[in-house]
Amino acid sequence: MMKYPLPLEKLISFLRKIPGVGKKSAERYAFQIISWQDKDLVGFGQLLTSLKKELLVCPTCGALHEEGTCSFCHSSHRDREKLCIVSTPKDLFTIESTRVFNGLYHVLHGLLSPLDDLGPAELAFDRLSHRIKTLAPKEVILALDSTLEGDATALFLKRELEKMEIHVSRLAMGMPLGSSLDFLDEGTLAKAFAARSI
Amino acid sequence: MMKYPLPLEKLISFLRKIPGVGKKSAERYAFQIISWQDKDLVGFGQLLTSLKKELLVCPTCGALHEEGTCSFCHSSHRDREKLCIVSTPKDLFTIESTRVFNGLYHVLHGLLSPLDDLGPAELAFDRLSHRIKTLAPKEVILALDSTLEGDATALFLKRELEKMEIHVSRLAMGMPLGSSLDFLDEGTLAKAFAARSI
Repeated sequence: MMKYPLPLEKLISFLRKIPGVGKKSAERYAFQIISWQDKDLVGFGQLLTSLKKELLVCPTCGALHEEGTCSFCHSSHRDREKLCIVSTPKDLFTIESTRVFNGLYHVLHGLLSPLDDLGPAELAFDRLSHRIKTLAPKEVILALDSTLEGDATALFLKRELEKMEIHVSRLAMGMPLGSSLDFLDEGTLAKAFAARSI
Repeated sequence: MMKYPLPLEKLISFLRKIPGVGKKSAERYAFQIISWQDKDLVGFGQLLTSLKKELLVCPTCGALHEEGTCSFCHSSHRDREKLCIVSTPKDLFTIESTRVFNGLYHVLHGLLSPLDDLGPAELAFDRLSHRIKTLAPKEVILALDSTLEGDATALFLKRELEKMEIHVSRLAMGMPLGSSLDFLDEGTLAKAFAARSI
């Protein structure tokens, strides 16, 4: 295989660090990027260089914010009696975009995963439990993935929080909107059956 | 829709500038990138900032090269009697990786496209015609896309170069390797029929 000039090789290898971007895509993206105007390249470059300084993680809830204070923790319009626990900052924004929740958030920045050595300490469970004691919410909503890691984390949190006598709920499982039975996996169908409503 | 913090919005909008990266992909990539270590972000950022200075375009053939001179134009191992014309630097690397060609290249950096106001001047046809006069190759191979723009460019170049009494060829059209008749479009099948060989 032909070797690309070094700066191009480097660009491709940075792009390949993004999960989901394979060799072919990284090459296609790289050749697009090198055709950008210099001002865009410099703008993009400077953004990345200063990203960790400009995009901050709230020390209280773990959400992302730009300079200043966290717009969730410091809002007077949000219901402080409900706390929604998510695993990533992206999940937080996804929930916000539905506008169904107006409480506070707590971002775990991960899920329990014994295979990857991610235990309660890595999820900063101390910080969460301290926060819950201070905040004393009426309800904690677990908005976690329906995966092995999500389930393990939900189970762990539910048990720990119920020890603290906190009311814990988890997002409903069932058919996605607009789905047909044909395309549902058996697990989802079984859950939807069990949790059927009239 | 929830607004992201400004640095994140900017990152998403830079990623969306890459053709083929839509809103959803750009968001997914951006959330991956913000989780990188600072050293990778800074490395990626500095690479982009200095890209135009480090990745050079050969003033003779239009190929990409790093510092120093173009490895195609200045190679003593390449056949200077064959010149292959491609539209993008990426196409050049694709042909190189097949190892079937050992001549010189000429990168047009575009294709004729009247709708986008890309005429012979934008493709620097003067530069190409000057180069061909100097180089006097025995054969010019047009390795251009089999699209409307590629065909128009090939037709234009063939006519102009034949005026200069240059032997011009174009890549063969036909069935891709491993393809079944079932999945071929009629145009390709017709071409393959017409150009059949024993």
